[in-house]
Amino acid sequence: MHSIDDLPTPCLLLDPIRMQRNIDRLQAHLARLGVTLRPHLKTCKNVEIARLLMSTPAGPATVSTLQEAEQFAASGVRDLLYAVGIAPNKLARVLALRRTGVDLSVILDSPEQGQAVAAASREAGDRIPALIEIDADGHRAGLRPGDPRLLEIGRILHEGGAELRGVMTHAGGSYDHPGAEALTAAAEQERAAVVQCAEALRDAGLPCPVVSVGSTPTAHFAQDLTGVTEVRAGVYVFHDLVMAGLGVCTLDDIAISVLATVIGHQSEKGWILTDAGWMSMSRDRGTANQPVDQGYGIACDLEGRPYPDLVLTRATQEHGALALREGSTETLPDLPVGTLVRLLPNHACATAAQHDRYHVLGENDRSITTVWPRFGGW
Amino acid sequence: MHSIDDLPTPCLLLDPIRMQRNIDRLQAHLARLGVTLRPHLKTCKNVEIARLLMSTPAGPATVSTLQEAEQFAASGVRDLLYAVGIAPNKLARVLALRRTGVDLSVILDSPEQGQAVAAASREAGDRIPALIEIDADGHRAGLRPGDPRLLEIGRILHEGGAELRGVMTHAGGSYDHPGAEALTAAAEQERAAVVQCAEALRDAGLPCPVVSVGSTPTAHFAQDLTGVTEVRAGVYVFHDLVMAGLGVCTLDDIAISVLATVIGHQSEKGWILTDAGWMSMSRDRGTANQPVDQGYGIACDLEGRPYPDLVLTRATQEHGALALREGSTETLPDLPVGTLVRLLPNHACATAAQHDRYHVLGENDRSITTVWPRFGGW
Repeated sequence: MHSIDDLPTPCLLLDPIRMQRNIDRLQAHLARLGVTLRPHLKTCKNVEIARLLMSTPAGPATVSTLQEAEQFAASGVRDLLYAVGIAPNKLARVLALRRTGVDLSVILDSPEQGQAVAAASREAGDRIPALIEIDADGHRAGLRPGDPRLLEIGRILHEGGAELRGVMTHAGGSYDHPGAEALTAAAEQERAAVVQCAEALRDAGLPCPVVSVGSTPTAHFAQDLTGVTEVRAGVYVFHDLVMAGLGVCTLDDIAISVLATVIGHQSEKGWILTDAGWMSMSRDRGTANQPVDQGYGIACDLEGRPYPDLVLTRATQEHGALALREGSTETLPDLPVGTLVRLLPNHACATAAQHDRYHVLGENDRSITTVWPRFGGW
Repeated sequence: MHSIDDLPTPCLLLDPIRMQRNIDRLQAHLARLGVTLRPHLKTCKNVEIARLLMSTPAGPATVSTLQEAEQFAASGVRDLLYAVGIAPNKLARVLALRRTGVDLSVILDSPEQGQAVAAASREAGDRIPALIEIDADGHRAGLRPGDPRLLEIGRILHEGGAELRGVMTHAGGSYDHPGAEALTAAAEQERAAVVQCAEALRDAGLPCPVVSVGSTPTAHFAQDLTGVTEVRAGVYVFHDLVMAGLGVCTLDDIAISVLATVIGHQSEKGWILTDAGWMSMSRDRGTANQPVDQGYGIACDLEGRPYPDLVLTRATQEHGALALREGSTETLPDLPVGTLVRLLPNHACATAAQHDRYHVLGENDRSITTVWPRFGGW
């Protein structure tokens, strides 16, 4: 199977040239700012891509599940941050992986979690490294700057037998604020929140070697990362319509797409039906609240050029209806049954997760040069 | 791993008693109406469950992808309807599977597709069975009753070397009309549309042995299926919050849930954070437009009893925030970090698709009696 024309549809395509450009861009930006990149591997869930993202085959890197930690560790990654609040019932797996020589660190934001990590560290004779999660923007988890539990947790970890490795935050709220000015401000808010907490720990005589920030929008728009030691980002490897809507990338940067076949038409309604429904695109509607709602994705020809105003407006399990954007003055393109189209996703993490492999495109033609697997699960 | 307490979270649980009750209920209803059930296997994507759904190990059954057709054929199913409009580039796979002795039929709604199926049939010396798709409610694909292309396609198939097997429709619009009265009316609309088209074919001297209808809501509320030979339904095997919102089932019928661990709290916001985000629940928001919006799902204790008004209101990739429903007078339950909860899904097909296995619960305890795999892909 060496041509796009021979692939079963729907399936996931990867443009490696766009991907490498995305990787190079963020690496260069962060190098200028003098911080380490700890790429988040939750977006790709693939070893070949992870190696392109990481500065060395051993890391550092970030993961969102212990499954990712185990899979990437098996391929040689030795420095991993598990960036979802730790629960006591996961510590046995953390310790088992650490015993294989992986420097796996965890995050937490409560004294209860600190006590569980400290107790597990003492019991195992292994100081589990933990970062305290800070809430920079009210978006999700973490302690707000100034919360007295910061020092309490710091002491529980440091004095209780674990390793207080530092502080981390994720500016998830940046997804709600398009434009360079707003994202630059969000990056500064993220930096300031976590640096303030690092200083509070140090002022109390506690260690805080790592100060970690990260989200794809803020990573690209940060102008100054004084006090920050590392940046995490994931979706930038592929980018997507949400990132384009925020102004973080252009449509030409989006490196994954879903290859679909036209399977019918409802001409009176102006619908072109394809075999790409939500099973292959995901149910993600991340652009729904952006200035331009991109439906479930937008349609391109096989060279990746968007058809003007052609949006995946409706999706059921294995059906997707392409239609012109509301108010469009364009003409519906003539795409007979059997025509192949490429669909750009709202959210790369969500769309890629619906697939178990990447079909890697050749340069400037329809060839598929290789197929890379993709894992899932927890 | 024999207890719910030992499972890595998030993961998918299956209550086999609820499932069997769902299966029995629809079978009994359709037996009373005197029609065959052709269960849709797109919801379960598992052989063990498929065998509970089908009247014989050889079928009949319905699939939504050729991957499903191939997987179920490999386990002995011999009568399969591929119920997504056929494209020419899929006919080689259809023919290959038919050569193994599987009676795989396809659907279509255009003369172009009819010509492609007829040409492939002639070339292969195999009359591919095809059903003409009818659009009963303007919801998705198919010909509206009265469309002159019905007879045109019928003749192309019948005279062109394919097998005109009949007509089929899917009342997807029934999902928009909650309540017994509306669903009974939708079932009659579905029946009338497809029976009218079957009669038109027969009046023109064309064969129409199969008259197929199907959607889980209409299958349960049909009162009379005169003229219909078979009913397709899929989601009823598990049911979900969308079906409960429509009045097709109760919360106590929902047979799958996602087991999640509490990983934190944002007390000021009234959030309980769990490790079940959209990666394990899916992004499906099928109840968003129902009278009761269930967020990304609702939370139950380990016995499957819902916590009053506790809804999965926000989801990111691996985080889900439980909060009280807006306007609730309940008190947020005390669920410390590490507590296990079960989350009922909006849409069983979408949530199950995020997992690669079912953990099958024992009766009235926390045991896991077996693990069944689940496949995906196309």
